[in-house]
Amino acid sequence: MMTNKITDLLKIKYPIIQGGMVWCSGWRLASAVSNSGGLGLLGAGSMTPELLREHIQKCQAETDQPFGVNVPLMYPEIEGIMQTILDTGVKVVVSSAGNPKTWTKRLQDNGITVIHVVSSSKFARKAEEAGVDAIVAEGFEAGGHNGREETATFALIPLVRKAVSLPLIAAGGIATGEGMLAAMCLGADGVQMGTRFALTEESSANRAFKELCIRLNEGDTLLSLKKLSPTRLIKNELFQQIQEAEDRGADSAELLALLGKGRTRIGIFEGDLANGELEIGQIAAAVKSIEPVATVMQQLISEYNARLSDLQSFHLFEE
Amino acid sequence: MMTNKITDLLKIKYPIIQGGMVWCSGWRLASAVSNSGGLGLLGAGSMTPELLREHIQKCQAETDQPFGVNVPLMYPEIEGIMQTILDTGVKVVVSSAGNPKTWTKRLQDNGITVIHVVSSSKFARKAEEAGVDAIVAEGFEAGGHNGREETATFALIPLVRKAVSLPLIAAGGIATGEGMLAAMCLGADGVQMGTRFALTEESSANRAFKELCIRLNEGDTLLSLKKLSPTRLIKNELFQQIQEAEDRGADSAELLALLGKGRTRIGIFEGDLANGELEIGQIAAAVKSIEPVATVMQQLISEYNARLSDLQSFHLFEE
Repeated sequence: MMTNKITDLLKIKYPIIQGGMVWCSGWRLASAVSNSGGLGLLGAGSMTPELLREHIQKCQAETDQPFGVNVPLMYPEIEGIMQTILDTGVKVVVSSAGNPKTWTKRLQDNGITVIHVVSSSKFARKAEEAGVDAIVAEGFEAGGHNGREETATFALIPLVRKAVSLPLIAAGGIATGEGMLAAMCLGADGVQMGTRFALTEESSANRAFKELCIRLNEGDTLLSLKKLSPTRLIKNELFQQIQEAEDRGADSAELLALLGKGRTRIGIFEGDLANGELEIGQIAAAVKSIEPVATVMQQLISEYNARLSDLQSFHLFEE
Repeated sequence: MMTNKITDLLKIKYPIIQGGMVWCSGWRLASAVSNSGGLGLLGAGSMTPELLREHIQKCQAETDQPFGVNVPLMYPEIEGIMQTILDTGVKVVVSSAGNPKTWTKRLQDNGITVIHVVSSSKFARKAEEAGVDAIVAEGFEAGGHNGREETATFALIPLVRKAVSLPLIAAGGIATGEGMLAAMCLGADGVQMGTRFALTEESSANRAFKELCIRLNEGDTLLSLKKLSPTRLIKNELFQQIQEAEDRGADSAELLALLGKGRTRIGIFEGDLANGELEIGQIAAAVKSIEPVATVMQQLISEYNARLSDLQSFHLFEE
């Protein structure tokens, strides 16, 4: 049986991590991914500590396989979120959007494997210094919040690979087994996929949001809100309002006022496709149906194996 | 000896094309690449028809291997450029930035292989309808002029692969043999590299420009000038002026006035690093030395072979 640094570290069958996403990744999605041989993640970014506790307990009831929690470290209720994680015996934390020094050691001292999400080699080195167990390097293609430097996956992965020796998980633009193998060519040990899993049956995103996403073409998302926090959004009515304001030089205060509160909830969870902030990755253009997680996982492994077999028939070039 | 659709089509040893670039790719660079087993391209975008004729003749004197010319189709002197190409017996034209219908048939009727550069599946389908022989799909990571949809290489290549059946060359973010193999995992038959070859000894870019580029880190370039034609630039003093104007909502007329004329020449060719428009790709951050083309080509093939051998030792995952 094929294993590598990531399957060994996380005690999973396949080096495939389901990205923790706001309003998509509750216990149904995370447990389905873990039961299919990947690592499921609950997305704490759209949960109170109490709601997270409920999702962790339901996930534990549904699977005896490892799963984790994605925690944006700038989250206002971060203390409560972390206490819930420590109380409930979660095995893996994927932290993002904040300083990995603050929590890593305390989590590890409680037997938790800590993975940190970065968008650059510089942040990868900082995460390594903070003592994390592995790194997710996420490129510009990814949906939702995104790095300011806009480094895309094809350039990012080899640069991070060279910068740190930790197990490396590639993210951004990956939704197929071929993509998984390509990421490994660039130096990754595993992959994190958000978009592919956000658009499964078990994702808690609104059906209308999923249906819109599987009809997207290339160019139907764009990195927006660069004066606040760069975020990849579908070009819906809200996006057009933001774009128009940015084009005429609106400042961050005006953009914050235009956005107001709860825009991801009303878009992704409630399905208001005109007025919601609709976060999804560029690779949505390659996802054309809403399937159960088990089917997606089988497809990924079968695509990966088929492409690897192709490559194994390639000859070397004459040097 | 390993061959594929691209080596067969272009009658070259390795499926590696050197991107045609303004102010970098004259006869020295193109002939060196062709003599090393790739396809060298002259960049007509910074040449008059007369200067192009001189470069073609020098290139023909230096190599008996195939080489080509990159032609931006919106070029003001396009008739003269194409006449020069037809007069001098050039074998390959790589066209970009314009409608491939206008010239493809006439070039092919004269025995020329025509490749068109696209930034999306939609444009790839149009190029296929226009009858081109192959496609370069170039992602957001690339230096210089870039697609409006900002699709990055990791998402772009599989989508274009699905959209058209033509031989497919991946570009944007590729500067190593591992990147070449990763592009093939995603469905490409070959690669085009601009940045890697712009920073060789034989490139006609100013030494000061090359020295700056090999010291770049991730995030030192950004896609700019989106109200004119999106262009990836190094964040120098000129970039900061553009950025400041864009942030306060400057319109295209103001941006044109700020730019004036000849900014790529004074930056890339004359080496004015503060006031020039400095075009290079994100992957410059992975290029750390200025080598002769022959050395670069040997490294690419050796890296490709080593990574392919690694993959050939991988086991399939249990399905």
